[in-house]
Amino acid sequence: MHPLLADLRVVEASSFVAAPSCGLHLAQLGATVIRLDMIGGGPDFRRWPKSEDGSSFFWEGLNKGKKSVAIDLRQPQGRELAARIIAAPGQGAGLFVTNFPVSGFLAHERLAAHRPDLITVRIMGHASGRQAVDYTVNNAVGLPSMTGPASLGAEPVNHVLPAWDLLAGSHATFSLLAAERHRQATGEGQEIRLPLFDLAASTVGHLGQIAEATVQQSGRERHGNALYGAFGRDFLTADGERVMIVAITEGQWSSLVRALGIEARIEQIEGKLGVSFRIDEGNRFIHRDELFALVEVEIGARSYADLTRDFDELGVCWSLYRDLKEALDEDPEFSGENPIFSNIEHPSGLTYLTPGSATAFSGLKRREPVRAPRLGEHTEEVLSNVLGLTGGEIAKLHDLGTVASA
Amino acid sequence: MHPLLADLRVVEASSFVAAPSCGLHLAQLGATVIRLDMIGGGPDFRRWPKSEDGSSFFWEGLNKGKKSVAIDLRQPQGRELAARIIAAPGQGAGLFVTNFPVSGFLAHERLAAHRPDLITVRIMGHASGRQAVDYTVNNAVGLPSMTGPASLGAEPVNHVLPAWDLLAGSHATFSLLAAERHRQATGEGQEIRLPLFDLAASTVGHLGQIAEATVQQSGRERHGNALYGAFGRDFLTADGERVMIVAITEGQWSSLVRALGIEARIEQIEGKLGVSFRIDEGNRFIHRDELFALVEVEIGARSYADLTRDFDELGVCWSLYRDLKEALDEDPEFSGENPIFSNIEHPSGLTYLTPGSATAFSGLKRREPVRAPRLGEHTEEVLSNVLGLTGGEIAKLHDLGTVASA
Repeated sequence: MHPLLADLRVVEASSFVAAPSCGLHLAQLGATVIRLDMIGGGPDFRRWPKSEDGSSFFWEGLNKGKKSVAIDLRQPQGRELAARIIAAPGQGAGLFVTNFPVSGFLAHERLAAHRPDLITVRIMGHASGRQAVDYTVNNAVGLPSMTGPASLGAEPVNHVLPAWDLLAGSHATFSLLAAERHRQATGEGQEIRLPLFDLAASTVGHLGQIAEATVQQSGRERHGNALYGAFGRDFLTADGERVMIVAITEGQWSSLVRALGIEARIEQIEGKLGVSFRIDEGNRFIHRDELFALVEVEIGARSYADLTRDFDELGVCWSLYRDLKEALDEDPEFSGENPIFSNIEHPSGLTYLTPGSATAFSGLKRREPVRAPRLGEHTEEVLSNVLGLTGGEIAKLHDLGTVASA
Repeated sequence: MHPLLADLRVVEASSFVAAPSCGLHLAQLGATVIRLDMIGGGPDFRRWPKSEDGSSFFWEGLNKGKKSVAIDLRQPQGRELAARIIAAPGQGAGLFVTNFPVSGFLAHERLAAHRPDLITVRIMGHASGRQAVDYTVNNAVGLPSMTGPASLGAEPVNHVLPAWDLLAGSHATFSLLAAERHRQATGEGQEIRLPLFDLAASTVGHLGQIAEATVQQSGRERHGNALYGAFGRDFLTADGERVMIVAITEGQWSSLVRALGIEARIEQIEGKLGVSFRIDEGNRFIHRDELFALVEVEIGARSYADLTRDFDELGVCWSLYRDLKEALDEDPEFSGENPIFSNIEHPSGLTYLTPGSATAFSGLKRREPVRAPRLGEHTEEVLSNVLGLTGGEIAKLHDLGTVASA
């Protein structure tokens, strides 16, 4: 954690990946992040992967370092309490991140009635209010038909990384910081709406794919594991290891050709075809079948150890295919040797390798990651410190079942 | 574009997706973003997809609304000029985004000698300086072996979306804004390093996958298009349309069951297995084969029009599989009807549907997206306005081949 945002207090009423990851980023930057949940947990409280006793690794991964308040959000007084926490005074407070519906009891206008300078960041499905999740926007922008080997025919391949949710979480983070900067100058709050569909649609546009589809009059076909528009693919070594090799820049290409000792044969192909692979990476893609065949033989003739020693000496861009368990077992970058990782104990009772922020700030000492809260762990603390409720008032809320504590 | 950051001036010396997308986000939020490139273009200037005449749709997508300065970065005086632009005075200036090497002529310490409060955001491969790109970190954290149908056996499936690059770009954006906020309070600059590998490794950790692999003693196996841990998959309608259906929340599940009229059969299966699908979404995953078989028959018996009318009435979370061209042809959300999109002309000379920011700020009027610059389009403007060079000095730099203009 980097205490850059130590004077900010953010309230999160959220579930799943996008909004919680926004809160996680802000917490890792030093903000106080209060997550509000239904008593018993929101819809993501048991989300897989989970432990044998049902603790969600997903939940405890995405809520590290946050404070947890458990409220019965079906009760009118629970909803009122949530609104008061969200709109509580404080110069660096009045920041709200959510994926609750636009027009419900956590509508921005309702909350802003308590605090006009409130900033709400609301992650949505579609701008219209129609629901969508990561796994329904991905195919709506055409990616599954581009993914996987051509042998699959019409069978699409879904992604397994919730990339749109993750991207929404980080977009929400910079949007909130930009709006808070604006508020410091003007005193103005506002609602920021970030529809997952629009995020995916704009992103494929930013990557040039809308222009491509417009000009080509067709979607991009699938190219298996070949990197589009340059040189890249997986290859098998003589001893059966699989490596990904990428040559997008001129330097990466030259290194690869040298490391494999295929300068003469590449020149020969270039002469035959009348192209330069060095200068124009697109030619490496156009003629990939010929290049892949050549490289395949070379990689297949060498052991993993020999090959990758040469690769590293010459600066080839490559990596090993492995599953995450193998990475954890074998790679020091997946261990406490990497400063982003620490072994800490979690609410599940388990101790495992836990990442802090991926980002290193030279001006700030890196802090250890902080475990996720137990549900309701900070209910009393927040009611007391943020709302100034007395012990008696808090006890009454417990008695009414309006709040719960861990 | 949202002029939230109108008082910021950011310099970008970058290529490909990650650093340029950071500059794009900042430009869309209203910052002045000056991209420095080699005369003739950096390594991404011809990156695919591109037009028939060689204009990169990729480049013009990721550099919208930026100013372009073309410098010969091999010349010592070109390097000096770049450093002066990066470290030029101004309260909201001294912000630098790059993927250039740590220790080269754009090393933070060198630049900070000119301006101690400089903030540099540097996107890297590995923290060690070892190179990596999106397509080599993805397999290094185990995703390709989890992607695609089990029928592929040991054959991994690479992703086609540069998710890690995109995520790095948005992480860079919020990291820069957090550091700039800190600088406003303290006057301190710093270097922020964001290694792509650490970003991927920390993200799979945040999602609970490191805990999962630690406890299971194995990586996650592939589940084809089935959504891990809940209900979700692609299904074919009677008329051959493919739809993605997701039921993660209780509400999504209840809607789906009602829309398909399978309440009784679901109850029967629940009774037989002694589980509740409604309360525990994990059960929908454990018993997915039985559920998929049932849903498959129901979807396969209905036309797309009938099915999706019922789905929308009852609030089922679904979407159509299609390629991007089909989306552009058929979906009003991929048209000028969606306020994020405008048809604008680009440096390629082509006019096509172009996204602005996916994010809507209630306090600010949305502005049309602004096309990418021609390479060197703003060389003279920046040398004059930012460095205060005279016409004669600028002409001399042209004569020496140190700079070029569009």
